[in-house]
Amino acid sequence: MKDQSLSQVVKALDEFQIETPSWGYADTGTRFGKFLQDAAAIDIEDKLADAGQVNHFTGICPNVAVHVLWDFKKGQNAKEVAKIARRYGVKIGAINPNLFQDQEYKYGSFGNPDPKVRQQALKHVYDCIELGKELDSELVSLWFADGSNYPGQSNIRERKAYFEQCLKKAHQKLSKKQILLVEYKPFEPAFYHTDIADWGMSYLFSKKAGPQARVLVDTGHHYVAQNIEQIVAWLLDENMLGGFHFNDRRYADDDLTMGSVDPYQAFRVFHEIQYFAFEKGRAPKIAYMIDQSHNDKAKIEAMLQTVTTAQELYAKAALVDHKQLSVYQRRGQQVDAEELLRRAFFTDVAPYIKTWRKKNGLPVDPLQAYRQSGYEARVAKERKARRIELGISGGSSYA
Amino acid sequence: MKDQSLSQVVKALDEFQIETPSWGYADTGTRFGKFLQDAAAIDIEDKLADAGQVNHFTGICPNVAVHVLWDFKKGQNAKEVAKIARRYGVKIGAINPNLFQDQEYKYGSFGNPDPKVRQQALKHVYDCIELGKELDSELVSLWFADGSNYPGQSNIRERKAYFEQCLKKAHQKLSKKQILLVEYKPFEPAFYHTDIADWGMSYLFSKKAGPQARVLVDTGHHYVAQNIEQIVAWLLDENMLGGFHFNDRRYADDDLTMGSVDPYQAFRVFHEIQYFAFEKGRAPKIAYMIDQSHNDKAKIEAMLQTVTTAQELYAKAALVDHKQLSVYQRRGQQVDAEELLRRAFFTDVAPYIKTWRKKNGLPVDPLQAYRQSGYEARVAKERKARRIELGISGGSSYA
Amino acid sequence: MKDQSLSQVVKALDEFQIETPSWGYADTGTRFGKFLQDAAAIDIEDKLADAGQVNHFTGICPNVAVHVLWDFKKGQNAKEVAKIARRYGVKIGAINPNLFQDQEYKYGSFGNPDPKVRQQALKHVYDCIELGKELDSELVSLWFADGSNYPGQSNIRERKAYFEQCLKKAHQKLSKKQILLVEYKPFEPAFYHTDIADWGMSYLFSKKAGPQARVLVDTGHHYVAQNIEQIVAWLLDENMLGGFHFNDRRYADDDLTMGSVDPYQAFRVFHEIQYFAFEKGRAPKIAYMIDQSHNDKAKIEAMLQTVTTAQELYAKAALVDHKQLSVYQRRGQQVDAEELLRRAFFTDVAPYIKTWRKKNGLPVDPLQAYRQSGYEARVAKERKARRIELGISGGSSYA
Amino acid sequence: MKDQSLSQVVKALDEFQIETPSWGYADTGTRFGKFLQDAAAIDIEDKLADAGQVNHFTGICPNVAVHVLWDFKKGQNAKEVAKIARRYGVKIGAINPNLFQDQEYKYGSFGNPDPKVRQQALKHVYDCIELGKELDSELVSLWFADGSNYPGQSNIRERKAYFEQCLKKAHQKLSKKQILLVEYKPFEPAFYHTDIADWGMSYLFSKKAGPQARVLVDTGHHYVAQNIEQIVAWLLDENMLGGFHFNDRRYADDDLTMGSVDPYQAFRVFHEIQYFAFEKGRAPKIAYMIDQSHNDKAKIEAMLQTVTTAQELYAKAALVDHKQLSVYQRRGQQVDAEELLRRAFFTDVAPYIKTWRKKNGLPVDPLQAYRQSGYEARVAKERKARRIELGISGGSSYA
Repeated sequence: MKDQSLSQVVKALDEFQIETPSWGYADTGTRFGKFLQDAAAIDIEDKLADAGQVNHFTGICPNVAVHVLWDFKKGQNAKEVAKIARRYGVKIGAINPNLFQDQEYKYGSFGNPDPKVRQQALKHVYDCIELGKELDSELVSLWFADGSNYPGQSNIRERKAYFEQCLKKAHQKLSKKQILLVEYKPFEPAFYHTDIADWGMSYLFSKKAGPQARVLVDTGHHYVAQNIEQIVAWLLDENMLGGFHFNDRRYADDDLTMGSVDPYQAFRVFHEIQYFAFEKGRAPKIAYMIDQSHNDKAKIEAMLQTVTTAQELYAKAALVDHKQLSVYQRRGQQVDAEELLRRAFFTDVAPYIKTWRKKNGLPVDPLQAYRQSGYEARVAKERKARRIELGISGGSSYA
Repeated sequence: MKDQSLSQVVKALDEFQIETPSWGYADTGTRFGKFLQDAAAIDIEDKLADAGQVNHFTGICPNVAVHVLWDFKKGQNAKEVAKIARRYGVKIGAINPNLFQDQEYKYGSFGNPDPKVRQQALKHVYDCIELGKELDSELVSLWFADGSNYPGQSNIRERKAYFEQCLKKAHQKLSKKQILLVEYKPFEPAFYHTDIADWGMSYLFSKKAGPQARVLVDTGHHYVAQNIEQIVAWLLDENMLGGFHFNDRRYADDDLTMGSVDPYQAFRVFHEIQYFAFEKGRAPKIAYMIDQSHNDKAKIEAMLQTVTTAQELYAKAALVDHKQLSVYQRRGQQVDAEELLRRAFFTDVAPYIKTWRKKNGLPVDPLQAYRQSGYEARVAKERKARRIELGISGGSSYA
Repeated sequence: MKDQSLSQVVKALDEFQIETPSWGYADTGTRFGKFLQDAAAIDIEDKLADAGQVNHFTGICPNVAVHVLWDFKKGQNAKEVAKIARRYGVKIGAINPNLFQDQEYKYGSFGNPDPKVRQQALKHVYDCIELGKELDSELVSLWFADGSNYPGQSNIRERKAYFEQCLKKAHQKLSKKQILLVEYKPFEPAFYHTDIADWGMSYLFSKKAGPQARVLVDTGHHYVAQNIEQIVAWLLDENMLGGFHFNDRRYADDDLTMGSVDPYQAFRVFHEIQYFAFEKGRAPKIAYMIDQSHNDKAKIEAMLQTVTTAQELYAKAALVDHKQLSVYQRRGQQVDAEELLRRAFFTDVAPYIKTWRKKNGLPVDPLQAYRQSGYEARVAKERKARRIELGISGGSSYA
Repeated sequence: MKDQSLSQVVKALDEFQIETPSWGYADTGTRFGKFLQDAAAIDIEDKLADAGQVNHFTGICPNVAVHVLWDFKKGQNAKEVAKIARRYGVKIGAINPNLFQDQEYKYGSFGNPDPKVRQQALKHVYDCIELGKELDSELVSLWFADGSNYPGQSNIRERKAYFEQCLKKAHQKLSKKQILLVEYKPFEPAFYHTDIADWGMSYLFSKKAGPQARVLVDTGHHYVAQNIEQIVAWLLDENMLGGFHFNDRRYADDDLTMGSVDPYQAFRVFHEIQYFAFEKGRAPKIAYMIDQSHNDKAKIEAMLQTVTTAQELYAKAALVDHKQLSVYQRRGQQVDAEELLRRAFFTDVAPYIKTWRKKNGLPVDPLQAYRQSGYEARVAKERKARRIELGISGGSSYA
C-alpha cells in the first residue's frame, strides 16, 4: 500500500465512530413471533451494559441510541440513566420517541386527523427533546409509522399539513445544538401509503420544520433497486443529510446486520461521503447509527459483526484515490474510474485495522475477544433467572 | 346483458364458495404491534361464531380454516369443536399446522438440521392429519416459515432433502380423500432464503411427496410484478393447483383485503380458471380460501368486504365470452381479445348479484345487513369484559 | 345515478382533454427490434393526420406533442407544420427536445462533464423554446436520459450542479406563458444512476430553475410498488405538478396502453386531482398527455383505446362523493371511505359517455367508427408504397 | 494463506474457463439508440478476432458463443467459420438460434398460434442443431422472446402446449453429445407474460423435452430480490443446471459487466457450485458463459474486466472451507458460517492469480497488457474505414 493510502486509512480509522441502538440488544422478531435469547437485554441497564461491551472491544461505539418508551419507564430519572451509561463506558446518543406503539396511534400520530392524538404525539416529542437536553444528547430522531392501509382511507394532503405543523412546533423546542432527524420509509407497517415515504418527503418536511432539521437515511427504507448512494450525494450537496440508520436487506426492511447482503453498496455510500469531504476539504457532520433487529443471531455478536464491518468498509472507502477519480470521471474513462472503486473495495484492510487496534490498546479480533470473555454465558444465566423472577414469558402469538 | 351471459353469471354465483380463516377474526398486527379491537375473537368459539355471521349474511362461506396451535388447546376435543361449528352454521375446513411459533423452530421445522426438531414438526403434521380425519376435513394446508437470514447460514440442498423426506412421510398418513397443500412464499420471516420460495419449488416438493399433494397459491406470496395468473394457468395445465389463499398487497405480504389494491389482477386469476373450465368442460377442484390479516379494519366487516368482492370478481370473470376470446387469440386480434376481458371486468354485476341473493333468501347488501344486526356492539361488550376477566392485556412491545 | 353524480360526470366529460404524442403513431420497439406496421406514420404529416383521426373520433385530443429531432427535419418551417396540423384539425402541443439520440450524448447532455456538449444540449433546448413560441405552444417538456452505467463512473454532485445551471439558463429563455416540464425516471437507458431519478430530484431542479418550472409525472417512471397518487397529491399541494405522461406497466417502463395493467391505479391518480379541485374550488392546471410506445397493437387503435380509457377513468373519478369522503376520512371510517372509491370505480359510466358523445356529435363507439372508416387500410397501402419509394427498410439488428 | 487454501485456489484457477459471446464485441444499445464505437466488430471475423484477444490475454476464454442470424450470413460455410476461429486461437462454443428478430415472430416463435411460424422457428432450430454438429459444438442455447403484452391477448396454456411439442421435436434432432439449454426471463421484450418466465417453467419444459435438455440461468433474468444462488443449488440437486449467462444488473435485464453491481452475489453463486462439487466429490458439468451488452464501455476492455472478475470471484469461492462450513451449518453457528463466506470473499486473491498467470505464460495484468498492445487503435482505424466503405451508418432512431 502506498504511504498516502495508508495515511488515509489511518485517518479514516481515527475518525470513524458509530452509534449502537439500545433495542439491538433486546429480543425482537417478526409478526410471526420472536425467538428468545437468554442473554438478550431486559432493561435499560442491560442494554447499556451490552453496548458497553461492544464499545469495550471495538473502541468505536461510545454512544447508544435510546427508544424512549422501551427504555425509559414512567418516572425514570434521566440523569440516573446517564450515570448508568457512564458506568458502562458509554453515553446516551440519539433520542428516539415512540409514536406508533400506543393504541391511540392506530390512525397515525403527527398525521392523525384527531387533534387530541396529534397533541399527545407532540407532547411526547417535546418530552423527548427535554430528555435530550437533560442528557446532553444532540439528536432527536423521528420515525413515523404513520400512513394508511387502503385507498381512500386518508386525506393525504391534510395529513401532510398536520405533519408540517407538528414538525415546526417540535423544531421550536430544540436547543441551539439539537438536531431534528426526519426518517423516511416506503412501507411497513402501513401498506397503502406512508406519510413520509421517501427522501423527497423527508427533505421537504425538514425544510419546512426549520434550520436544524435534517434527513435521516435508513439503508433498509428504500424501494428495491433504488440507488441509495445517489440520494446520499444529493443530500450532502443540499446540506440536508443528518445521519444514517445502517442495516442490510434483500426484500423489505429486513434489518439484517450491515453489509451481510450487499457489502459493495454500503461501501459506495461511504465512498460518496468521503469523496464529498475530499472536495469540500471538510468532513460533513453525519450521525452514523446502527438500526438492526435480526431475529436469530446472538445480539452482541451481531453488533460486533456489524460495527467491525462498518469500520472495514469505511476504511476501504478511504483508499479510493479521489483526485485520480475526478480526472477519470471528467475524461469519461469509465473503466478506470470504476476500477478505482473496485480495487479499494477488494483491498484487504484487515492488517491495517489490526495495527490500528493494537495502537489503541484494543483486541485485534473483537469478536473472538468478546467470546473469550465469557460475558454472554454470564449474563444469560443471570438474565434467565431474572426473567423467571419477573414473570417475563416471551413471545406472544400472532393471532 | 345477453341471456347467455346472464346464465353464466348465475351459474358462477351458484357454484362459488370461499373459505374464511379462523385467524382472520382475531387480533393480528405487524412486528411493531397490534391495534386491538374489543370485538375481535378470543377463542375458537368466538371465531366460529364470527365466521357463522359471515356465512349467514353472504351464504357463500360455509367452511372455516383453522390454525391448529391457535385454535386447538391441548386436550381440546375435535368432535366438540365440530359441534360448535355446526351450532354456528359452519364446518371446519382446511387444517393448518403451525410450524413456526415454537422456539424449537428457530432454525426451521421440516428443514431443520436437527433430526429431533424435524421429528417434532412431523409429529405435529401427523396430528393435524388425524385431526382432519376426525373432523372430516379434506385439506391439510402446509405453510413453512423455514429459511435462513444470512448467506452461508444453511446448506440449502441438505434442507431440500429433509423437506422431501418429511413431506413424503406426511403424505403417507393421508386418507384417500385428504389433500396435502404445499404453500410457497419468497420471504418473511426468513430474509436470506426461504426453503419453499416459489411455485417451482412447491411444485417439485408436491410431486415428490405423492399423488395427493398440490400447490397452494397465496396471492401475496410473489415477487413484485410477477404474473400470478400465468402461474395459475400452468398449475391448472399440470393438474397441480390445489387452492388459493386470497388477499391483496402493494409491497410485501401485506395481507390486505382482497382486491383492495389491484382488483383487475384478482379478476384475471378467476378468468384463467374459468377459461380452463370452459375448454376442459369441467370445473377444476380448487379450494378458494381467504388469508388476510390487516391491522385495522373491523374484522367481520373486512371479511364481508373480501368475500363479496371475491364473489363479484368471480361473477365478472364469468362474463368473458370464452369462445370468442379463443378466436381472437388465435387470429392475433389482441385489442379485441383484451377488450373482451376489460368489458367483463367493468360490467356492473351488482344487479345480478342482488337478484341472486334475493332468490337465495339472503340480504341484498350483506355489509349493511350485518351492521344493522348489532352483532359487533354486542360481542365487543361481552368480549371486552371476558378479556378483563381472563387477564388478556393486548399487544406486546416490539423490543 | 343521482342527479348530482350525473352532473359531476358531465362536467368531467366537458373538461377532460388529453394530448397524444406524435411518436405514438410511428413504428417503435424494444432493443431487440421493431415489429413494423404498414400503417405506421412515416413523417410529421402522417403523424398529424393520424392524431387528427383520434381527435375526430373522440373529440378530446386536439393537441399533439412533438419530439423535435424525430418530427422536425433541418430547415423545416414551424409555421408550415402548424398549418398542416390545422389542416388535420389539431394543434401542436408540448415541444419535446431530444437530448439522448446524438452520439455526443454518450455521457449525458445537461449533466455531461464536457462543457461543449452541455452547450450543444442547451442550444437545442433554446431552439425548442423558440419553436414553442413560434407554434404558440405553452409546454416545453424535458426528459433526460442522462446518467451512468457503472459505480464510480460519474461525479453525481458535479453533474447535479451542471443540471442546475443549464435548467436555470433554459428557464430564462421562456416566454411569460411557457412552462418548463421536468420529467424523472429511475432507470433506462442508464442502469447505475440516472441524474433525475425520482420526483424529489425533479422537484428540487424545478424549484432552482425558476417559477415557471414544474414536475412532469410519467406513470411508468417509478419503482415497482411506489405509490404514484401520493406523489401526485404532494405535488398538487406544493403547486408543482405540471403534467402527466400516461401509460401502464408491470415491470419497468413498459409504455403499454393506459389502464391495461392496473386501471384502479390510474383511477386513483384522477381521484386525487379531483379531490384537490373539490377542496380548493378550482381545477389545477395540469397537462394530461399520453406517452405510450407498445410494440404490436395497431397504432391508432391503441391510441383510441388509451384515450377512451382515460376519459372513462376520469369520469368514474368524478363520481366519488368528496364531501362524504372527507367526513369518513376524518372519522376513521376506513371501510366506508374505501367503498366510496370502489363503488365509483366499478360504476358503469359507459351510458353517460355515450350520451355525452351523441350530444357533441361524436360517434358513440370511437374504435368501431374508426374501423368502419377504412382509414387504416387506406394509409397502410399508401405508406407501404411510399416506404419502398423512400428506401425505408425497417428495424435494424440488435447486435 | 494456508497451504490447503492455496491449493484449492490453484485448482480453481486451473479448471475455470468462461465463454465469451460474439455479440459482446459488436455495437449494441437500448431502445433509445446505440452509442457507436469505431473499434466495435462488424462481422463474424472481427468478433472472433476480438474474442481471440480476450483469450490471448487471459487464457481462460477459448470458446466463443455465436448468434446465428447475426453471425452467419446466408450461405456462409460453417467449416470456414471454424477455420477463422482457429486462426484467432478460439473455437465456436454455444450455438444461439435467433427466434425473435424476424417480423414473423411478432406473436411468438415456438408459442405462436400460427403453425407456419412455429414450423419456421423449428426449422431454424434444426438448422442450428446441424450447425452445432458441423462445428463440433455441444451446446444449443435457446432463448425465447415469446410472450404477450396485454391481458387476454394469449392463451397461455395453448402456447405452453406448443412449446412442449416444439422442444420435444428439437430434442429429437440432437446428437448424443449435444445439450439443449432452455433459458428463462421474466419480462422484456414481452411485458404482460413471457412464455418461459422463471426457472420452474424452464425446468418443466426441459424435463418434457428429453434427457439432454437443461436449464440455462441468466443472472440478469430474475425478479428483483430473487435469490439466484438458491435456484442454482436446486438445479444442481436436480441435475438440471446446464449453464449460465453471466452479467450484472440493478433494475431489469441491464446486461452490465459481471460483478459490477453486486459482486458478493456472483461469489455466492460460485460458492454454491463449489460446495456441491465438494460434497459430491465431482465438479458438475456447467457451461459458464458471458452475456453482457452494455452500451458504453469499450467492448474488449469490458470483456476483459468481466472475465477477470469471474476468475477472481471463482478463486475466492474456492477459499471457503467446506468441511468447516458444513459443521457450522449443522450446529446452527450462523455467525461463524457466514464469516467463512465473508472472509473468503474479502481475501485478496490477486497475488495468487498473478502467480498463476506467470506460470501459464500470461500477462499478469490482462487489461494493461491489452492496452499496451495497441490493438484497439489499430482495429478502430481499419473498421472505421471499412464501415464507410460498406455504407454502414449506425444507430437508427427510436421513433
